[in-house]
Amino acid sequence: MAPCAVTPETGQSLTVALGPRSYEIRVVSGQHEAFGAFVRRALEKTWGGGSRRTAFLVTDAHLAKLGAHLPLAESLAAAQIEPAIAVIPAGEPSKSLEQAARLYDNLVDRGADRHTVVVAVGGGVVGDLAGFVSATFARGLALVMVPTTLLAQVDSAIGGKVGINHPRAKNIIGAFHQPVLTWIDIQTLETLPDRELRCGLAEVVKYGVILDALLFASLEQNAARLLARDEAALRSIVFRSCELKAGVVAEDEREESGRRAVLNFGHTVGHAIEAVAGYDGPFEHGEAVAAGMVAECRLAQRLGWIGADVTDRVARLLEQLGLPIETPALDPALLLQAMRRDKKNRGGKLRFVLPRAIGSVELTDLAGEADVAAVLAGEEARTL
Amino acid sequence: MAPCAVTPETGQSLTVALGPRSYEIRVVSGQHEAFGAFVRRALEKTWGGGSRRTAFLVTDAHLAKLGAHLPLAESLAAAQIEPAIAVIPAGEPSKSLEQAARLYDNLVDRGADRHTVVVAVGGGVVGDLAGFVSATFARGLALVMVPTTLLAQVDSAIGGKVGINHPRAKNIIGAFHQPVLTWIDIQTLETLPDRELRCGLAEVVKYGVILDALLFASLEQNAARLLARDEAALRSIVFRSCELKAGVVAEDEREESGRRAVLNFGHTVGHAIEAVAGYDGPFEHGEAVAAGMVAECRLAQRLGWIGADVTDRVARLLEQLGLPIETPALDPALLLQAMRRDKKNRGGKLRFVLPRAIGSVELTDLAGEADVAAVLAGEEARTL
Repeated sequence: MAPCAVTPETGQSLTVALGPRSYEIRVVSGQHEAFGAFVRRALEKTWGGGSRRTAFLVTDAHLAKLGAHLPLAESLAAAQIEPAIAVIPAGEPSKSLEQAARLYDNLVDRGADRHTVVVAVGGGVVGDLAGFVSATFARGLALVMVPTTLLAQVDSAIGGKVGINHPRAKNIIGAFHQPVLTWIDIQTLETLPDRELRCGLAEVVKYGVILDALLFASLEQNAARLLARDEAALRSIVFRSCELKAGVVAEDEREESGRRAVLNFGHTVGHAIEAVAGYDGPFEHGEAVAAGMVAECRLAQRLGWIGADVTDRVARLLEQLGLPIETPALDPALLLQAMRRDKKNRGGKLRFVLPRAIGSVELTDLAGEADVAAVLAGEEARTL
Repeated sequence: MAPCAVTPETGQSLTVALGPRSYEIRVVSGQHEAFGAFVRRALEKTWGGGSRRTAFLVTDAHLAKLGAHLPLAESLAAAQIEPAIAVIPAGEPSKSLEQAARLYDNLVDRGADRHTVVVAVGGGVVGDLAGFVSATFARGLALVMVPTTLLAQVDSAIGGKVGINHPRAKNIIGAFHQPVLTWIDIQTLETLPDRELRCGLAEVVKYGVILDALLFASLEQNAARLLARDEAALRSIVFRSCELKAGVVAEDEREESGRRAVLNFGHTVGHAIEAVAGYDGPFEHGEAVAAGMVAECRLAQRLGWIGADVTDRVARLLEQLGLPIETPALDPALLLQAMRRDKKNRGGKLRFVLPRAIGSVELTDLAGEADVAAVLAGEEARTL
């Protein structure tokens, strides 16, 4: 079978501008048959002539049962990239040194070398684990991200953060390792569980609040279509979210300038909720972030940065999307303690990314612990 | 105690020019008291004001018994960088995922974060393991290399290669992670076992052959002084070796352009000897490389690139330094098989870095397997 040609008609494309590490995000609908050719093209610079090329395709047991990876493996084979498949258990516990060790074993068994590309097909867990292994095998194998959840498509598969958990610290073992290609198939969202769809939408709302009032307004208008999984509506917000995140990442690849911190809106309180409730607790990440965004809007209100109308708009949209808007009843002292460990903090002061308006945020240490405690206690915004 | 000032008089300094990742190599004699201040200066850009700074000093049980790290820890404390000490077992088996996991545990226990610098005090094993952990904890902690063997001082501590072994593949789990400072104390060589000193000298001879005829000549003149551990002689060759390696690394940081391959002279055959004899076998790395350099000179002779006089000069110098010059009696078929796995190879052809003269080498695939077999069999160079 001749490899499918790489044509500009295959989906929509955008570039993550990172100099020598720049790469393409391609948003498609089905179109598996073109995948192998795009992988090959992305690797042309890296792969010299004449060598045997192999792909190490990592997916999880849940997706493997659905066979989601099989057309991709076929397309790789058609492009003369011999695929091998590794299946990890589904779920967060797979982001472990033990699973990384299993993948290393597998790579050594298969004689993987610099002509091997790691292809991560799955949600955040698969991308983070396979990405970490690709970052650290033979001092860095090429990586292709094929995110299959909305959250991974708009967030975790873009930006180069890969990593695994330590039993006592989430994501603490990791690296920055940019993929050579991110391949987003909107059709994978058809079978995504409702709750995961909503959790992905929480991050899309975040992009609207921090960077793009038009995206926010379009979410308000299209909430019902999105929940009904209208393909055009999903494609539009996925593409725009990728553009926005790619722009931030291009400005601050390794979280050095502070610019990348804007992506943390809703996450200061959100991470605290997850830490206190337990990462395998009742809240999904997107749910904790949704409640966190509303809490942080209220904090911005206390600083006089926004009026109650902005908070209400954010809360109303999240509610329309089926997401929680109230911080769950957890011990406020424990939540504050968790926030004190946030890596944005400087000089012993809490720092938050807070909105000035829909589409505009700022990193600030003006919100003190008393303000946070008041917001968590549900007190009214102070009048200036 | 007030921190010691950073003065240009403290030892000799050179810069590894890697743009935003540029760093200083400082070659000193004793002068521990200045160490903390240099670490602090190297980290000024990374560390904001007001935060607690900590160092995670990793060394091995052998050095810990000698107390080699204690003056460095004191100097860090004097510079307000609170030191914690982790001791790993001495020897190559410590370059394992298990030891990395122990160090991760230790870092989590101590609440390490981006204000923690990892300080690797030891030979190649300590540098490679602690370097790998620093590359992968919190997506990269700052790293200071304090190599205490000649081999580490002139080679493994420069260039950013860090990593651990897989039970079936040496150095296969790793990353490129540049230190912020490399601190070389020539006095640590006083107590280095003879065999380790000679092994380090093999790599210095390599720098002479590949890049610097003057260095080579000075080794010929000063062999006796070096073996007698004359401090000035050692300082001079260490400094020059660092300059030479830093220059190559600056041109090809991540082994992409091919330039860095010149450092592989003697290593194609050398690695094959190690692989066939077993990495915990009778040959130290430097010994295998010494025999490998002579074999590769003979290969260059077969291509007509050099005369027998060049090979003789290399062999004579290595012999003066107490290093082996003959490939040990291992199965030539197994040696060839190991060379076929060399990562320099392209298009199914063996590639070697071979001398054109003392001070000049070239990467080539002109030496075929028959030539290699003939050299291993001790046949005369063919006449052109």
